[in-house]
Formats: sequence, C-alpha cells, structure tokens
Amino acid sequence: MRFSSLRYQTLACALSTIVRALELPDYIGLKTSLNRSVLEVTLHNPNSPINLWNQDTQDGLVDLVGKLQQDNETKVVIFRSDIPRYFVAHLDLSIPNLAKFVPSFGNLIYNISALPQVTIGAVEGRARGAGNELLVALDMRFATKNDTLFGQPEVGSGLFPGGGGSQYLPGLIGRGLAMEYILSANDINATEAERIGWINKAFDKTADMDSYIDRLTSRLRLFPQSALSGAKDTINLRSAPTREDILHDTTTFVRQLADPVVGQISARTQKLVQNSSAFEVELNLGEIIPLLYDDDA
Amino acid sequence: MRFSSLRYQTLACALSTIVRALELPDYIGLKTSLNRSVLEVTLHNPNSPINLWNQDTQDGLVDLVGKLQQDNETKVVIFRSDIPRYFVAHLDLSIPNLAKFVPSFGNLIYNISALPQVTIGAVEGRARGAGNELLVALDMRFATKNDTLFGQPEVGSGLFPGGGGSQYLPGLIGRGLAMEYILSANDINATEAERIGWINKAFDKTADMDSYIDRLTSRLRLFPQSALSGAKDTINLRSAPTREDILHDTTTFVRQLADPVVGQISARTQKLVQNSSAFEVELNLGEIIPLLYDDDA
Amino acid sequence: MRFSSLRYQTLACALSTIVRALELPDYIGLKTSLNRSVLEVTLHNPNSPINLWNQDTQDGLVDLVGKLQQDNETKVVIFRSDIPRYFVAHLDLSIPNLAKFVPSFGNLIYNISALPQVTIGAVEGRARGAGNELLVALDMRFATKNDTLFGQPEVGSGLFPGGGGSQYLPGLIGRGLAMEYILSANDINATEAERIGWINKAFDKTADMDSYIDRLTSRLRLFPQSALSGAKDTINLRSAPTREDILHDTTTFVRQLADPVVGQISARTQKLVQNSSAFEVELNLGEIIPLLYDDDA
Repeated sequence: MRFSSLRYQTLACALSTIVRALELPDYIGLKTSLNRSVLEVTLHNPNSPINLWNQDTQDGLVDLVGKLQQDNETKVVIFRSDIPRYFVAHLDLSIPNLAKFVPSFGNLIYNISALPQVTIGAVEGRARGAGNELLVALDMRFATKNDTLFGQPEVGSGLFPGGGGSQYLPGLIGRGLAMEYILSANDINATEAERIGWINKAFDKTADMDSYIDRLTSRLRLFPQSALSGAKDTINLRSAPTREDILHDTTTFVRQLADPVVGQISARTQKLVQNSSAFEVELNLGEIIPLLYDDDA
Repeated sequence: MRFSSLRYQTLACALSTIVRALELPDYIGLKTSLNRSVLEVTLHNPNSPINLWNQDTQDGLVDLVGKLQQDNETKVVIFRSDIPRYFVAHLDLSIPNLAKFVPSFGNLIYNISALPQVTIGAVEGRARGAGNELLVALDMRFATKNDTLFGQPEVGSGLFPGGGGSQYLPGLIGRGLAMEYILSANDINATEAERIGWINKAFDKTADMDSYIDRLTSRLRLFPQSALSGAKDTINLRSAPTREDILHDTTTFVRQLADPVVGQISARTQKLVQNSSAFEVELNLGEIIPLLYDDDA
Repeated sequence: MRFSSLRYQTLACALSTIVRALELPDYIGLKTSLNRSVLEVTLHNPNSPINLWNQDTQDGLVDLVGKLQQDNETKVVIFRSDIPRYFVAHLDLSIPNLAKFVPSFGNLIYNISALPQVTIGAVEGRARGAGNELLVALDMRFATKNDTLFGQPEVGSGLFPGGGGSQYLPGLIGRGLAMEYILSANDINATEAERIGWINKAFDKTADMDSYIDRLTSRLRLFPQSALSGAKDTINLRSAPTREDILHDTTTFVRQLADPVVGQISARTQKLVQNSSAFEVELNLGEIIPLLYDDDA
C-alpha cells in the first residue's frame, strides 16, 4: 500500500527536519548522537571515574534541554553513561555555590520531566543521588541486573534528596517503600527495583536491554510528537510534582546544607575516600554509609 | 439466632426496594440484568463485531448512570461484554461530532467513578481506548488470562487518551509504567496487568473469575449503600481525578483531533482494515500499529 | 580513624541527650522502652484480649506524640503489640462519645504521620480498623506471615475508615486494590500484603523480622534527625493526605454513625460475640462479617 498524500507529507517532514534538525554543540560533560528522531545522551564527566554530576554536566543538560524544548522533530531522548560501573554516582558536593546550583538543578529536573520528547533512562552501574533523581523524573527507566544499584544516599550525609526525588519516587513505588529507601539510604538492585516499580524492567544482559529499548523507540519515533507530548502532559497532570513542589525541595535542601553536621559527615567521607578511592568506596556506598558514623572506623 | 427488629428492617427494606427498584428501559447498545441489588451491564453494540463504543453505547450509559445516581437500592454494577474476543475495541472514530461527543464521554467517565454503587469490570477479550478508560475509572477490574489484552492505542493514531485514562492509570500502576504503555500504544496481557496493578486479579478460566466476583458481590450486596458510597468518596478524594482534571483531557484531545496527521493516520487505518477486517486487525492492534507508518505496508 | 572534632561533637550530643532525653510517664494502654534513640511503643490494652483501641490507647498516644514532636533526640519509633494474635483488633465501639473521639483520632493519625522521627510498624496478629489506620499512616510496615491479617472491616459494620485509612492505602497499593479491600471488608494476609505494597516486607519468622528492623534502625539512629525529618516532609508533601483530608473522613464517619443501620449491625455483632467470644470471632473477622447479615445465623 502506498498513500501519495502521506508520502508527500513524509517528504515535507524530511525536508523540514533538515531545516529544523537539532543542532547541538560539543558539550564537556555529555556526548550526544541523533539518529532518526532518537537522541542518545551519554553522561560522561571526563574528570570523574564515578561520573559525578558537576557544573559541566548541568550546564550541558540545561543547554540541551533548552534546545529540546524548541525542537519538534526529536521524539525520544535516551540517557546513558559510558563510565564503567557508574551511571552517575551523585552530585559533586565540592561545587562552589551549592545554594545557587541546587535550585538550578531542581528547575532542570522539572524541565526534563516536562519535555515534549519521550525520555528513557538506560542504566548500568550505580545511579544514586542526583543520578537517581534524574532517572525518576524521566518517563521510563530500564536497567541491567548484573551491576546496577539505585539509591538516594543523601540522608546518610545529613541531607535529603533536593531535586524532586522524594516526590517522584512515591509515585513509582508507593509512600511506604519510598520512605524505607530514602530514609535508610540503602541501595536497591535492579531485580528488586523492577519488582516494586522503581524501574520499568530489568534485564539479564545489556543486549537484552538494548533490544527492548530499540523495539520501543522504533515505535515511539513513528508517532507524532504532538501526540507524545500531549499524552505526557495529561499523565503528568496528576502523577508528577509541579515546579513549585520541586523548588520546595531545593529550598529545604539548601537550608539543610547549613547544618554543621553536614560538614562533619562530609569531612569523614573525605577521609574514607582518601584511605581507599572514591571508585571503590562508592561501589557499595549503601553498605559503607554506617562506617561514616563509626568513631573507630 | 434471630433478631426480630432487624428482620422487620429487612422486610421494610424489601418493601421499599419494590417501590424504588431500578426500572430500566431497553437500551440499544447495552443489556441489563438486575438480581438482588447486583446489576449486570453487558456492553453489546449490535452493529459491531469488535464492540466499538458508539453513540448508542454512550447514550445508554448516560441514561443508566443518571438512574443509578438516584438509586439507593442497587449495590453493585458489573460491566461485561458478550461480543466474542472483544470487551470494547475502542471509540468509533466515525461518530459525526467528536468535538461534542468526547466531553460528554469525559463527563460520563467521571460520573461512573463517582457512582454510589460499587463498580466492577469483568473482562474477556480486547479492552482498548475508551474501553480501557471505562475500566480504569471503575472501582475494580478482573480478567481472564487466555484472550484478554488491554491498551491505550491513541498515541499510535496521533491522539492520546481523552477521557481520563492518562490520569486513572498512574494511580494503578505508577507513572513510569503508565508512560510506557500509553506512549508506546503497546498492549498488555492480563497476567502482566495483574502483576503491575492495572487489574485486581487475573484468572485462568472464566468460571474462576465468575466465582471470585460472585463471592465478592455476595458480600458487597449485604452492606448498606451509604457505607459503600461513603467509603468510595473518601478513597476517591485523594486517588481519583476530579471532573475538571478529566475535562482538561477532553479539551486537549479535541484540539489534537484537528491536527492533520490524525486524519492521515486514520486514512491509513481504513485501508489496512479494508484489506483484511477490523476483527482480524484489531485482535493484535498493538503489534500492527507500526505498520500504519510503513510506506511499503 | 578518629576525628577529634566529631568526637567532641558526639560527646556534646551525648551530654545534651541526657538533658533532653525523652521522659515518658507510665501509660495505661502503652508500654515504652527507649534505647539509643530508638523508642519501642508496645500497644497493650490490659482489659482487652484482642487489644481494642480505647480511650487509654488514644490518651497515651496523644501524650506521647506531643512529647515526640518536641524531642530532637529520638530517631525511630517502633510500634508493636504484646497481646497474642492481635496487633490491634479495631476501635472499641463502646467508647461513650465517638463523635468527639473520632476527630481526635484523625488528628492523632495525622500528627503521627508528620512526626520528625521515623515510624515503623512491626506486626504479628490481626491489625484491623483503627489498628490498620495507624499502620498505614506510619512510614513503614513489616509483618510475620504466620498469623497476621490486615483489614478495614468498617464497611461491613455500615461504616467506613474514619481516620485516613481510605487515603493512605491507595498511596501504597493503588486505587483499585484499595477499593477491593475496603469495600469488601475482606482480610489480607502478610504475603499478599507484601506483594501489593500494603506492607514493606513479610517474614517467615519473628526473628527474621526483628533482624531486619534491627539492621534498619541501626542505620536510621545514626543519621541526623534534621535529615530524617526533612526527607519525611518532602516525601509526605505529595504522597500523604493533609490534616484537612483526614478530618474530612472523620466528619463523614461521624455523620454515618447516626445511620440506624449501624446500630442494628452493631447489635447483631454483640449477639455473635456473646455466643462465642470476641477472641474467637475476631480471629477471622473478614470471613465472619457476612454472617452478621444472615437472618438465620
């Protein structure tokens, strides 16, 4: 079957795609690759073996999201990492002005959740703190079982999730399990995360995850962006936090940063990392957090 | 044990039941059967082998719901279909004035969710689009495993759920899975639907489902309607969308109907159905949707 | 590793703990035990073999919660029962002034959910009505599989949950399953309760549950209370009912109390209990409820 009018339309779209195609600069903290309306965003902090979320990460994403908001050709954005064993360890707490950085992070997270494109997280390795907050704000999340752990370790540092994580997570796993994982700063693996709804699906192998996401995006990229974004808006209307809700979190987070106990725990963390390496310490951060409070550690 | 005062009350109720019993006309698109405070509503479009939701379906339900709102004897309403392999395929998109029909559908869905009676869906076969939107607005949903598929195929047609489906579904399965199924227009079977909470329970055999629903309704029909409706109101207060929320969806749906791409995809769908039959095409609609976008299909 | 400044801080905290440590009176309906920032509260109604929630229970908890609101040392509060086979059967419906008692219960439930401490339920035996409403308002819930049943039997008594249960439960198990269990007044066991999210985890043995909770509290008690309470506030912001939401329930509950049918069912319940014993009748209350409506029972 061939439908000339639709073919013409397809051609027109193809032409207009050339004109309006997403033009992206080189980012320091991100790699990007656009292929048939599907944008792959690889989070890559070149200076961090644990892929810390730093100013470069955030500057890149703020710029990218601003362009995607104006773009009506891209249908799907897939977030990955190419740093071995780490999706994103967490926020780089050495960022100079966290009181300014965190509200900007909150706005970014909200803007990502409200993008007209479908957003997907494909996770291998650790995704904690800001990394998990990015993930739960996305539309969907997938992960491999072998080496993936999710967590919000903030409470173990005297803080709490500051960018909406506390509000997106209950909408995925319910209030009771969100309380348990956020308050205890415990990790969760991908199998259990799938069972309770933290992620959409867990896979034995990377190739299985890639096939599943490929099949999904091969459908999604066909559909009109107006339909995808319209559906997202009506789903988010009741099930996602508002910008004000998230900025409430950033405000209380910044206030909590001033609590002296935060600095004390941070100093202990530094010591622990210096005696080993961030790469090793962070692999099983959930288990290690109590050592920060052990006077004999 | 016998309690004469309560027996008297029971008798009084029985008498008043006779007086106020639900009197229903013959509907074109519905069959109804009332038995001991339990009303069975069978969705039956006599002109559609896939049980399309058309003007007759909606007119019948609007009239029925108006009567149920005034009725204080009926305790339970069970929705079924007697069309083989189809609960409800979806909305009949050939309805003349969709811009008027859809807001009326949204109001109906809200009114059903707010009924004083307990509402139950018993599903065998395909329940997609408007059929699934009816189901997720009900209090509970059950299905047989053998031949049941649920889905919201609208995005595949350049549209999105227009009657509250996008807002009820996240309250059952969480935002992440609601995003995946609504955005991808993929089907879900009853086993998986039970696992994630889309339906309350899935059954191997029709007889098993019927027994389970019988046991449930044999309890529910005993309880005072004031208690049932009072409980429903407090549950819905936080967990169901408001009428305004649903009418927000109908408004954006109607706006989206005017997008030229919707007409183009619809024309392709017509061609596909003509080359085969709606009955065959719709059986596995989720799998077939991408073909609508294939220039060589 | 030793960090003298933090040790000093720890010492200062220890001293201030002595000064500000929670000082609790002897309660009639509660036993309390404080150990290293973890408070165990044992619900114990000395006059009820089924641990009915009565005026003493509530007076004790209102006083305790008032003290906890002002206390910045306690980190975790664990709720248990030491009455064999019963966590809390339900509200004692013989309380003289329920119209005043229930709004006070609603306020208490809200205040418990908003405590700065982490709250945990450890359940063995029946937890129904007010007992389950307390549990679902807590941050987390655990139970042993052997002899535990949860339920909201109110609708079977012509009432409905009056203290927020109808609003917390959908946030744990979704609207559809909350409707089924609340409307049918059916019990659910711990295995199934874990599967759908009603509780966080179910255990084969008491010792397993205690170990799990010990590991959890051994982490939680380390973390600053300001971090724990800050995280709770942001989680609750979107996922918990407000005080007004709960008081809406108490208001409609009190109105429903005046329905004559409630008194009639209550009289039947009294008869049933007199012919057997509350202890026996309440063990499988979910199954027995329909007998209350059987004229030949």
